[in-house]
Amino acid sequence: MTVPQLNPRTDSALVRAARGESVPVTPVWFMRQAGRSLPEYRALREGIPMLEACSRPDLIQEITLQPVRRHGVDAAILFSDIVVPLRACGVDLDIVPGVGPVVADPIRSADHVDRLRPLQPEEVGFVAEAVHGLVGTLGRTPLVGFAGAPFTLASYLIEGGPSKNHELTKAMMYGAPDLWHRLLDRLADIALTFLRVQAEAGASALQLFDSWAGVLSRADYAASVAPHSQKVLAGLADLGVPRIHFGVGTGELLDLMGDVGADVVGVDWRIPLDEAVRRVGPHRALQGNLDPAVLFAGWPVVEREVRRILAEGAAARGHIFNLGHGVLPSTDPGVLTRVVDLVHEVTAA
Amino acid sequence: MTVPQLNPRTDSALVRAARGESVPVTPVWFMRQAGRSLPEYRALREGIPMLEACSRPDLIQEITLQPVRRHGVDAAILFSDIVVPLRACGVDLDIVPGVGPVVADPIRSADHVDRLRPLQPEEVGFVAEAVHGLVGTLGRTPLVGFAGAPFTLASYLIEGGPSKNHELTKAMMYGAPDLWHRLLDRLADIALTFLRVQAEAGASALQLFDSWAGVLSRADYAASVAPHSQKVLAGLADLGVPRIHFGVGTGELLDLMGDVGADVVGVDWRIPLDEAVRRVGPHRALQGNLDPAVLFAGWPVVEREVRRILAEGAAARGHIFNLGHGVLPSTDPGVLTRVVDLVHEVTAA
Repeated sequence: MTVPQLNPRTDSALVRAARGESVPVTPVWFMRQAGRSLPEYRALREGIPMLEACSRPDLIQEITLQPVRRHGVDAAILFSDIVVPLRACGVDLDIVPGVGPVVADPIRSADHVDRLRPLQPEEVGFVAEAVHGLVGTLGRTPLVGFAGAPFTLASYLIEGGPSKNHELTKAMMYGAPDLWHRLLDRLADIALTFLRVQAEAGASALQLFDSWAGVLSRADYAASVAPHSQKVLAGLADLGVPRIHFGVGTGELLDLMGDVGADVVGVDWRIPLDEAVRRVGPHRALQGNLDPAVLFAGWPVVEREVRRILAEGAAARGHIFNLGHGVLPSTDPGVLTRVVDLVHEVTAA
Repeated sequence: MTVPQLNPRTDSALVRAARGESVPVTPVWFMRQAGRSLPEYRALREGIPMLEACSRPDLIQEITLQPVRRHGVDAAILFSDIVVPLRACGVDLDIVPGVGPVVADPIRSADHVDRLRPLQPEEVGFVAEAVHGLVGTLGRTPLVGFAGAPFTLASYLIEGGPSKNHELTKAMMYGAPDLWHRLLDRLADIALTFLRVQAEAGASALQLFDSWAGVLSRADYAASVAPHSQKVLAGLADLGVPRIHFGVGTGELLDLMGDVGADVVGVDWRIPLDEAVRRVGPHRALQGNLDPAVLFAGWPVVEREVRRILAEGAAARGHIFNLGHGVLPSTDPGVLTRVVDLVHEVTAA
């Protein structure tokens, strides 16, 4: 008897759920599952700056694998950062502990925009190498690749770092629309190249993170952001891997974020999944949406919320269980493992 | 000929708009109009800590009046901070520049909750004195008093300061509901006392700020927060002054935030006012909703957006023009003055 070769790109629960196909269990993974909630991650990162960790294929692989080993999740998510492709194509930036990305020379003028050059695939060869190695090690477990969406990348580049109010970003968006669209078009190309590299190296699914899109009204999102995210997602269509699209606080935008070309729309905890189905429509799968703060409320509450989300998610074309935002660093990883087991137990029936 | 005595509590455009009565012009004021965007504020605050400035009737009055003099807004907003009543009833806290409120001994247990005692009106006598003086000086211009809502106060007290994820707050809300409701009930009493002091000293309207309510789903807001905000707003009903209720990112909650007893629902920039009318219903006025970031985009954009908002606000029972969040510190105050003039010019016809 030979063991059948399962291909994560066609046979994994993650990919099947993304396509609305039947699944043996609801697949589950967690945004930021590879990271500070794990003691083995903190030990490995000791003395190694974030951008170095994101640049070394050996570390990328080990950190990506840690939560798969520990939690038995149904997908690995590439350990990286949304600024990695920007740095790879020459933007002078660093990730400062306790702050986030800091850009040395923020983009504020046409000159700055014109200096932003395309990403060459070989500039992220270390990512391709890591993905290739990971796919071999992961076997039947799919790897999710990712990139930051043009709007979110633009916000970091224009503000010079994380921003609460995005006032310089919006000033350019409203006040200099030609420059804005030129910048976002370049960022779309960079994100697209970065995602294609990951898929071509073997990633089974791709997630486009538009973390900050929820600060925009529908009208502004549609006019100033959607065309560029659409360029990215359309540019992936020929690869045949599911495209997941996620942002925080995007309840008002869920349909638009689907319509730009997502197979799966990520939902945060503010909108119940059955309501998200009504907004997104019946043709796309959903991912989400346990509030990461619920993981601090004790197991009975976590269990109740997981069961509620699974029940609400049953209305979707396909459901990938996840948090509604990234794992918080002080999360007890033992609770995450129990969530994986519970999702499998409840949905295996 | 005698000049008619206009009473801001009945005759001001702000109060009339809040009640859905006809107005000569759409009233306009700005959240955080008294503050760091004004050079005269920065000069006055030099060397004076925030909580001291909020405790001295002379400074409260002067800072409250500065934007009225400069911009000709249709309302003054009391210069204070949502933690002022907490400190007045004995909570050990400070406002740290660049951080925000910092609570020495965050509330994490039943013991802590039980130590939180009611606010006595005389403990905020300095606010009553400032309001009384202001009302005399302001004449026909109404003064808006305010307080933080129970949920937002709870978040500061439980987290110990500003929080991005509110995980400890939600852990108590989900995991210890009895304790949670006891805490929020006490905070409702404190907010109510603080607001009554301001109204009894002469404030013409009261705004309840639930700044963080937008981090909650509808179900959680309805079950865990709404009853306590309702207690505050119901406790003001006999005063006959309009009650404004505002939070950021609350598009999903607008109807609920009206239904807890608001006369006016504040709306941020994410939801157009005509859509907000559909959500809130025809029986309440609206306040909002220019994105404070738009003020950085140059006058043609500001003018276009102000005109759009006025057109959309015409659908409301009454419209008080405001920003969709507070004035950002780096705002050019000259632009704010032009916005006031434009709102008056467009709506005077």
